[in-house]
Amino acid sequence: MTTATNATTAPPTTTAITGIATLVTNDPSLGEGPLGLIQDAAVVIDGDRIAWVGESSKAPATDNRVDAGGRAAIPGFVDSHSHLVFAGDRTEEFNARMSGRPYSAGGIRTTVAATRAASNNVLHANVGRYVAEARRQGTTTVEIKSGYGLTSQDEARALTIAGAHTDEVTFLGAHIVAPEFADDPAGYVDLVTGPMLDACAPHARWIDVFCERGAFDGDQARAVLTAGKERGLIPRVHANQLSYGPGVRLAVELGAASADHCTHLTEEDVDALAQGETVATLLPGAEFSTRSTYPDARRLLDAGVTVALSPDCNPGSSFTSSMPFCVALAVREMGMTPDEAVWAATAGGARALRRTDVGRVNPGARADLALLDAPSHVHLAYRPGVPLVSAVWHEGTLI
Amino acid sequence: MTTATNATTAPPTTTAITGIATLVTNDPSLGEGPLGLIQDAAVVIDGDRIAWVGESSKAPATDNRVDAGGRAAIPGFVDSHSHLVFAGDRTEEFNARMSGRPYSAGGIRTTVAATRAASNNVLHANVGRYVAEARRQGTTTVEIKSGYGLTSQDEARALTIAGAHTDEVTFLGAHIVAPEFADDPAGYVDLVTGPMLDACAPHARWIDVFCERGAFDGDQARAVLTAGKERGLIPRVHANQLSYGPGVRLAVELGAASADHCTHLTEEDVDALAQGETVATLLPGAEFSTRSTYPDARRLLDAGVTVALSPDCNPGSSFTSSMPFCVALAVREMGMTPDEAVWAATAGGARALRRTDVGRVNPGARADLALLDAPSHVHLAYRPGVPLVSAVWHEGTLI
Ligand SMILES: [Zn+2]
Ligand SMILES: [Zn+2]
Repeated sequence: MTTATNATTAPPTTTAITGIATLVTNDPSLGEGPLGLIQDAAVVIDGDRIAWVGESSKAPATDNRVDAGGRAAIPGFVDSHSHLVFAGDRTEEFNARMSGRPYSAGGIRTTVAATRAASNNVLHANVGRYVAEARRQGTTTVEIKSGYGLTSQDEARALTIAGAHTDEVTFLGAHIVAPEFADDPAGYVDLVTGPMLDACAPHARWIDVFCERGAFDGDQARAVLTAGKERGLIPRVHANQLSYGPGVRLAVELGAASADHCTHLTEEDVDALAQGETVATLLPGAEFSTRSTYPDARRLLDAGVTVALSPDCNPGSSFTSSMPFCVALAVREMGMTPDEAVWAATAGGARALRRTDVGRVNPGARADLALLDAPSHVHLAYRPGVPLVSAVWHEGTLI
Repeated sequence: MTTATNATTAPPTTTAITGIATLVTNDPSLGEGPLGLIQDAAVVIDGDRIAWVGESSKAPATDNRVDAGGRAAIPGFVDSHSHLVFAGDRTEEFNARMSGRPYSAGGIRTTVAATRAASNNVLHANVGRYVAEARRQGTTTVEIKSGYGLTSQDEARALTIAGAHTDEVTFLGAHIVAPEFADDPAGYVDLVTGPMLDACAPHARWIDVFCERGAFDGDQARAVLTAGKERGLIPRVHANQLSYGPGVRLAVELGAASADHCTHLTEEDVDALAQGETVATLLPGAEFSTRSTYPDARRLLDAGVTVALSPDCNPGSSFTSSMPFCVALAVREMGMTPDEAVWAATAGGARALRRTDVGRVNPGARADLALLDAPSHVHLAYRPGVPLVSAVWHEGTLI
């Protein structure tokens, strides 16, 4: 034991955040209820990990100390669904839709054309900008999908760019049928499951498909996901967003980590989710920005389904990166309690990404933490729209 | 003319903000459409006033220059309706309501008791905190009401405290019947229109009343507003929030500056607003946080009514200070176009406060300006929940 300072060696690495009015740990063994709430709490960060969690008065000695000043702390949000590798501007499409003006929108195709035409530097800068924007709002883990390239080369490029910003990279070649294959959707599925998968599988952890009328039907989605599984990718599915369909049941059958959207569900769909391991990831930003009916989170929770929340950040249907906004919407529109919504935005997202090191604040977890300018996590719903996230630690570093 | 520097005299006072991708002036003579939009614009601030507005390439020489870097700029938001002089905590009431749990809430009375018990310092700090929070979100003018004191002394104290933070101070002694007068509402109206008005009139510009079943009926509201007018206060009315009633028509008849809420309107109410000078101020945060039906802004706009937006910041029914959130809600839920919602949150609020020096960016206006981290004002609706306000000038000073 020595107390001598070693000014020339590594800097101090342990930091105690004390005086946290309410801490959400998401570890029921550490605190009260499913959120594992601790009042007047402290968290000790050692390097990039959580080293200790408990009552503030019992915090061990550390190199640094930060006083939370009676603010609440939550695990960094885990966003399991985003489409950040894109270029182009669809503001006028949104404006016309919300203003009731006609507009010959190209929809996703507009973004595909702009993304293909964009340089690597532009795409990198865009992803970096939105990841940073999300992080300032408390999101410390973000999944990023391809899906605006739709050629082998452009999809692989998107995944490589995404991979520079996150470990959670998803191959979504089957987002829509590429414009070049408009008359030959089967040919496009062959491309996605063949050469495009060859080009993309090394750069992704996940494979996703938009299983929806107008995109890919159940058989096509099965072909895509099965081919991906054979290459070691784990399925996740855009399912039942715009209409009833086979997506959710397919997701459960194939052991997908997550079925995303889940807006139009039959009893069979809900039963399948309740009996399987697939998380239902709800994306209320999409319903907000398209004036559509929200998914019924209450029904899913009451059936025992694990629910996650994500902003679904994309330039077409949900151009928000704000998890606090989704928490507020989930409470207002989807029958979730504030506790359930905060859990879904943190631990739920982690489940949807099969991660045990994020979405919680307990010893060993990654030191991802958001301080709120409010005494409790409930204020994320109580104070909608107010930017409450006032400090964020990501991998132990205050951003 | 001299170019000599005078280092010991006043510092330079003119600043040009250049490179604004889209500038909302709200002055149709300066630019395109009702918002007076200018692309690639510049604004020159001289002291606390706007001195010049136009194309960036034509900006005159100034002492300082700020590059907006392709961001949009809008007039600072004008919030014409807030209840910021309060103490106490109603988080659990909100949490129970949204979680479907029983809770013996005292409602406004809880806040009245806590506010009466709070020191001047605590109330000042609370108001200052929420005004600063709103300002960071782009709100540069805010009206503040009393209404949680409900004694002559406590109401006058609330107004004095409000007056330290804004010029737009509203006497709302008639918020609810004070608990002490539960069995004698007529006696409370006598107090409000007599001794309480005597104590409060010197500290306020406006008089307001909550005209609603369970609060004050049409005759009582008329008595309050008429007494206030006789003391030089200008009426504004909480009208038709929870049910149909006489509030809106009374507001128009008495020449109120604004009828606020306007959720339940008959054709007669809409006609009255259309023919009168009273602004309809819509407060969608209240409907959001109480899961109520939103007011129909489209109907009002189509009838020719002037519409304003406000967050209605208060700890009971709408604990948000976020005007961007209200803009997004107005577009999603109330049939407003993004342009109309941005106008209502700026120029509309100014109309509701009968101000011509705020809510616009034109020569002579107060230099209140918000820069958005986005190329246009439409993004306030297109990117819900994202804290887009990245810089705010208030009275010419960058906050
Ligand atoms: Zn998606
Ligand atoms: Zn009010």
